[in-house]
Amino acid sequence: MEELSSEKVHAGHTVDVSVKRYRRADGTEVTREVVEHPGSVAILAYDDEVVYLVRQPREAIEDDALLEIPAGTLEPGEGELECAQRELAEEVGLAAEHWHELKVVHTSPGVLSERATIFAATGLSPASGEQDADEQIDVVRLPRAEVKAALEGITDATTVVALLMLPT
Amino acid sequence: MEELSSEKVHAGHTVDVSVKRYRRADGTEVTREVVEHPGSVAILAYDDEVVYLVRQPREAIEDDALLEIPAGTLEPGEGELECAQRELAEEVGLAAEHWHELKVVHTSPGVLSERATIFAATGLSPASGEQDADEQIDVVRLPRAEVKAALEGITDATTVVALLMLPT
Repeated sequence: MEELSSEKVHAGHTVDVSVKRYRRADGTEVTREVVEHPGSVAILAYDDEVVYLVRQPREAIEDDALLEIPAGTLEPGEGELECAQRELAEEVGLAAEHWHELKVVHTSPGVLSERATIFAATGLSPASGEQDADEQIDVVRLPRAEVKAALEGITDATTVVALLMLPT
Repeated sequence: MEELSSEKVHAGHTVDVSVKRYRRADGTEVTREVVEHPGSVAILAYDDEVVYLVRQPREAIEDDALLEIPAGTLEPGEGELECAQRELAEEVGLAAEHWHELKVVHTSPGVLSERATIFAATGLSPASGEQDADEQIDVVRLPRAEVKAALEGITDATTVVALLMLPT
């Protein structure tokens, strides 16, 4: 498709909103409201015993304690792997020897440009990182044998994808 | 958590953006930029042979042909099941005898309020529905034996969740 025009109607902290006009492959033209997101990463960090999750307030959905895998938004100029390594240290206090890209998902492609790269991280060891001042994160060590039961109560889409893809 | 204030900084077509201030359970106060979404549904419709997918342009991620399960946004006052039945008729031309809620996901809870309800729909029969004028949707009948291989190329998070939960 070809972008014909783009008007930024909101410049925000994490996201911008633009109204864009496109010409599709078949020649038709459409107008779309697009929430522009810098992209994100999420990390499925696990060893033989547990998967590392985080519990934190998510104001956007009015949840005081959403259970998710560690995740974060790309900083300007930051690569996905670099971001994932930073977030794993900041949120869980871990480094990983082995990283591989497990899956890329688009979280809500009808309206949001976010592309989330999910990494699997193994060979874990302690690391130090500093949480943002307004983050309030508890680390949860979920035994691998309890993942299936825990999924019932987990709603973050990226986390559900990652846990369903965890090797058994 | 308690919402202390909310300022709408953008009123859009599908989404609004608000800057909100919250007091958390522990007393700390935070400011968050929230993209307010009315909620959505997605439908995992299948029979013994195939799963019904749709292929359509998704301008937000600059993809001319994203493969997804049928899905849509709640209209004002519309219930989730009612919306799912409408979307299945409009996008795939099917009605279903049996509906059950497979999973609720939050697509991007750090920034977007969207709550997506995924239904499983079986006992399929032809139905008629009318597509929106600017929708351009092709129906894809994916043999169930090919779902695992097809997942490699599927990136819509809600679709990945649904297909990973398809009974085998």
